[in-house]
Amino acid sequence: MSKFLDERYSSLEAYVPGEQPQDKKYIKLNTNESPFPPSPEVVEAVTGEQVEKLCLYSDPQSKMLKRAIAREFSLEEKNVFVSNGSDEILNFAFMLYGKQKGTLFPDITYGFYKVFGDLYHIDYTEIPLKEDFTIDVNDYIGKDKFIVLANPNAPTGITLKQEDIIRIIESNPKSIVLVDEAYVDFGGKSCYELIKKYDNLIVCQTFSKSRSLAGARLGFCFANEEIINDLETIKYSTNPYNINRLTQLIGEKAIESGEYYAENCRKIIENREYTENELKALGFEILPSKANFVFAKHPRYDGEKLYLKLKEKGILVRHFTKERICQYNRITIGSKEQMTALADTLKTILSEEK
Amino acid sequence: MSKFLDERYSSLEAYVPGEQPQDKKYIKLNTNESPFPPSPEVVEAVTGEQVEKLCLYSDPQSKMLKRAIAREFSLEEKNVFVSNGSDEILNFAFMLYGKQKGTLFPDITYGFYKVFGDLYHIDYTEIPLKEDFTIDVNDYIGKDKFIVLANPNAPTGITLKQEDIIRIIESNPKSIVLVDEAYVDFGGKSCYELIKKYDNLIVCQTFSKSRSLAGARLGFCFANEEIINDLETIKYSTNPYNINRLTQLIGEKAIESGEYYAENCRKIIENREYTENELKALGFEILPSKANFVFAKHPRYDGEKLYLKLKEKGILVRHFTKERICQYNRITIGSKEQMTALADTLKTILSEEK
Repeated sequence: MSKFLDERYSSLEAYVPGEQPQDKKYIKLNTNESPFPPSPEVVEAVTGEQVEKLCLYSDPQSKMLKRAIAREFSLEEKNVFVSNGSDEILNFAFMLYGKQKGTLFPDITYGFYKVFGDLYHIDYTEIPLKEDFTIDVNDYIGKDKFIVLANPNAPTGITLKQEDIIRIIESNPKSIVLVDEAYVDFGGKSCYELIKKYDNLIVCQTFSKSRSLAGARLGFCFANEEIINDLETIKYSTNPYNINRLTQLIGEKAIESGEYYAENCRKIIENREYTENELKALGFEILPSKANFVFAKHPRYDGEKLYLKLKEKGILVRHFTKERICQYNRITIGSKEQMTALADTLKTILSEEK
Repeated sequence: MSKFLDERYSSLEAYVPGEQPQDKKYIKLNTNESPFPPSPEVVEAVTGEQVEKLCLYSDPQSKMLKRAIAREFSLEEKNVFVSNGSDEILNFAFMLYGKQKGTLFPDITYGFYKVFGDLYHIDYTEIPLKEDFTIDVNDYIGKDKFIVLANPNAPTGITLKQEDIIRIIESNPKSIVLVDEAYVDFGGKSCYELIKKYDNLIVCQTFSKSRSLAGARLGFCFANEEIINDLETIKYSTNPYNINRLTQLIGEKAIESGEYYAENCRKIIENREYTENELKALGFEILPSKANFVFAKHPRYDGEKLYLKLKEKGILVRHFTKERICQYNRITIGSKEQMTALADTLKTILSEEK
């Protein structure tokens, strides 16, 4: 921290993304990336001619990309916002809607919500999930605060029923409800169509997970036109050319490769079931996940110790130190080969323990 | 604006980037892009294999890219910050350093500074440039405020002498001085080496102009290690994966293609001199520019009218409505062919007027 730093930010604790160690080649099951490359159409679209055009700015309105997304979801372009990763949408939403009335989100959820809360000096409450890590819907009824819910939730993978989301939206008509659907394509149900009915709903998605474009940085959200305009205003007041020119192009192509990505999601779900079965056979307890990861703990093996042991053996998973979940590890569902390697390695680790 | 928007942002006037009309093909001299493609090394680096790797997140530390930049400028990696375009650096700097003591910048300069000032509710002063559009250095001496100076300035193209920058830095030791060098490679002199001596200096540059990568979104800055850490903290608190994976790669390649870009800059300077001569022959008054644009007015032709007439004839230049400069137009220096077309079109317009 420099001596020049505004004191309002002097105690800020930044978000810590999943580690990316460079010391050796790991089986990376720690940042929920897709094991599959982007679609052939995406790869083909990045021609030398397109790279040469990088001398020109990207379209700050992202018109073609918005059009493709709107068409795919049968919504209108005016209901779509696109961003440099979905974290940018969360950032803007916390900035614009979080402070005036305060903010609510679960105690166990995407760790970035708390960082945004601190960044903007928001009065936020982390509402404890129930013992089984599900949400108690009543905690969010009639609160008149900015409510942020990941569905499926991370790092648990647990989903919230659409009727519960509707209850929350309807009971907070004067505040925004943001549903973060980063992991929705692996068996969850999106509530994006509800934006037609409710003017206080933002539904946020990403190209990073199911669409194999984590490195391209592209997120999007749906909402009422007025909310989209708010988000556009803040974008034009911070970074108008927020999205890379090639990313706009390949985002469009990715949207048009729906079947390729749907097939990849089916494979991930299959590999998730395989992983759950293997882990259960080894004695793990696993939360019911609809995401591209599982959250698992072993009754006789310390969570952090297991994470370190796996790392030592070349497999990275994500461990969180927060007390309530420190016995768990979040394991990304990768390819069948990767998950078999994980199962085999876990067998070895557990047998070594005996 | 939605009814949910935090009232602190309800009167925000966003930055308006240069227009990107899609109705026909224009000679685009309005957003200071390079007429030259990125270097062959950059284009070759974007292989299908690299595009396939977009399923993986980019390195949030941008290690390789920082290393390449540090090497090129003979500085250390810890003195380098990289961002999603240099607007992101400006955004962070205004947020972190602008509010506590207030901010100073010229009345005629990059229009975004004012937007950041408004966004963060900063007490800022727009200090009038002198009659000839140069800075009166005394206005910035001993002020103890966050000072932001574009050098060369935009949209004038006028430079500030290094000895003047040093005077300003030395007289404000308890506040940050940010020098925005977006256009420095077209004949200006960078003050990046001063960061070794002064702990209150940020020198900001970009890949958008001289390095032909406007569409890739990549900016960087140099500063004391502690300031870089401030910027990293705010990056990790808003958008840790701020830079596209391919952009990190091609940024590295661009840095290594120094001679290619230096040659392009020589051509731009040559075309600038050509343009200045042509315009002067037509009666234009032109400010002395060291940037990849000229700021010109005609004593007998209204600035806005000229802008509209050029647009009608297929040439886009940038017109600002601010009273002090509304008789001028900012004209990007493009290829020789483009500048000849501009000169010919201006001849036609002025002769039609007679």
